[in-house]
Amino acid sequence: MAVYTQVSDEDLSRFVADYDIGDVVSFSGIAEGVENSNFHVRTSQTSYILTLYEKRVAPQDLPFFVNLMEYLAARGLRCPTPIRARDGQALRRLNGRPAAIVSFLEGLWPRRIVPAHCAGLGDALARLHRAQEGFPMRRTNALSLSGWRSLVAACEARADEVKPGLGASIKAELAHLEVAWPKTLPEGVIHADLFPDNVFFLGDKVSGLIDFYFACNDFLAYDLAICLNAWCFEPDHAFNVTKARLLASAYQHHRPLSPAETKALPVLCRGSALRFLLTRLYDWLNHPEGALVRPKDPLEYWAKLQFHQRVSGPEGYGLDPA
Amino acid sequence: MAVYTQVSDEDLSRFVADYDIGDVVSFSGIAEGVENSNFHVRTSQTSYILTLYEKRVAPQDLPFFVNLMEYLAARGLRCPTPIRARDGQALRRLNGRPAAIVSFLEGLWPRRIVPAHCAGLGDALARLHRAQEGFPMRRTNALSLSGWRSLVAACEARADEVKPGLGASIKAELAHLEVAWPKTLPEGVIHADLFPDNVFFLGDKVSGLIDFYFACNDFLAYDLAICLNAWCFEPDHAFNVTKARLLASAYQHHRPLSPAETKALPVLCRGSALRFLLTRLYDWLNHPEGALVRPKDPLEYWAKLQFHQRVSGPEGYGLDPA
Repeated sequence: MAVYTQVSDEDLSRFVADYDIGDVVSFSGIAEGVENSNFHVRTSQTSYILTLYEKRVAPQDLPFFVNLMEYLAARGLRCPTPIRARDGQALRRLNGRPAAIVSFLEGLWPRRIVPAHCAGLGDALARLHRAQEGFPMRRTNALSLSGWRSLVAACEARADEVKPGLGASIKAELAHLEVAWPKTLPEGVIHADLFPDNVFFLGDKVSGLIDFYFACNDFLAYDLAICLNAWCFEPDHAFNVTKARLLASAYQHHRPLSPAETKALPVLCRGSALRFLLTRLYDWLNHPEGALVRPKDPLEYWAKLQFHQRVSGPEGYGLDPA
Repeated sequence: MAVYTQVSDEDLSRFVADYDIGDVVSFSGIAEGVENSNFHVRTSQTSYILTLYEKRVAPQDLPFFVNLMEYLAARGLRCPTPIRARDGQALRRLNGRPAAIVSFLEGLWPRRIVPAHCAGLGDALARLHRAQEGFPMRRTNALSLSGWRSLVAACEARADEVKPGLGASIKAELAHLEVAWPKTLPEGVIHADLFPDNVFFLGDKVSGLIDFYFACNDFLAYDLAICLNAWCFEPDHAFNVTKARLLASAYQHHRPLSPAETKALPVLCRGSALRFLLTRLYDWLNHPEGALVRPKDPLEYWAKLQFHQRVSGPEGYGLDPA
């Protein structure tokens, strides 16, 4: 639960006084999220989210994230809009941490995914990929091939503690992806972490996307692969092809996939499954005893990876062959 | 941090549909508090707090608390107002827990107490004591003399682990209070836990009192003694008589203390200091290894108790002698 840094009423009032957003009338920590400290701030005008950036976000990446949200919001995407203080800066400091105030988004994230959510998601993802066009900053995806290589090296020896044979399996999968990973596909800024808790809905309509702190430059279709993994498997790890078809077709309504992207989907899904398998495995093997945050189960993504290994083409995801 | 029970968007929407408060448009867990699970719920109409009552609140006490808040709010006190569902009930169930929706109060609780806060507090405390008059339900204070007896018995043997001699000291203090504790003083429903995090301010005006889950019948002046302990000591445990004088005189503006109450103040302050010393000591000695909530320092209240032991009369708190 995400309040790592306490903020006093006086520090908050002083901080907010540098903005043209009215006086603070309510303030409480938000229990969701694991990376940063988030607070609900209500002023005499409206509601905002205050984020204090904690250790896991690299300070040099913050201008990319904040400028990206501002760019996307200005182009009509529903996402948190950074608020600039009177000095023109959106990225400031509070209690020794980088801090930003962003607009408050209505909506609830869905705990149980129904097919209509996947259609809404596909629409929103394509709108994101259209809205990011022309964004001038770049951020390398540290969790692509070279990142997987480091994580496999860090986890390989102890992976069998989680499941016998897992070490050899992840090494073999990495070897496959080193060869099969696409060299050229349409690129742009991707969200890279569009799990259900980062997508707000009102009814079955998406009301906003949040948490852009993994955003980076990569293949656009890789973002779709991440969503196929995060949204289209049932709790028993069965793949729901109806959800996948709705996700992909709603996406293609705004941004049709090229034949090369369609053809690459199975390998992109394998890469995405390996990426979350590896980070979860690393956290599982390295989380401190008695830590506040319980690590997520890496084997969920091992099951998903095995599914993708058996998929022979885009038809496996309900798409027409390229 | 207080979200022990997760609530899904679907469960919440079903729950809220039984009320005439509009549709849910936003929902997040609140990181403050340690007893219950609290959520910020925004509907198409306004904002509310949803509370799920966890194990530390006895279910048989809940009607007292909920009816009390409703009674106080109806009599003009600024406190959370329980919202009744269409079936007329304010106390309902969600995810297997007793649950209630209450009105949302603006305001921030003060982290650094200045004298003006104590004047606001005294005013609000007296208004509470006037507003509770005529409330028809009763709840015994389980943390008065008989409760202290049990806690001393439970802690005595191991108290010296915290500070050499503490076991004998708390036993001696209990013996003193068994004799000196008042038999008859004006009684009523007291808040019994009016620490700074339960008092919201906008500027130096009190905007509301929250967290009535220790409320019970006891001497009204004992509530004032609890506030003297919780608000009038500086972080170095020095007693600030200016704050005490402002607290007591603002209180007496609405509810003058009787000579007997004024005279009893030193012993009531000793009892209140012992009460928080004992519950903190118990939690300190009995908290599980690696628990989420770090227990509060019992010795803070040992220092306060020692101050009160040296006070010879109400003048020590800045009051005129009775």
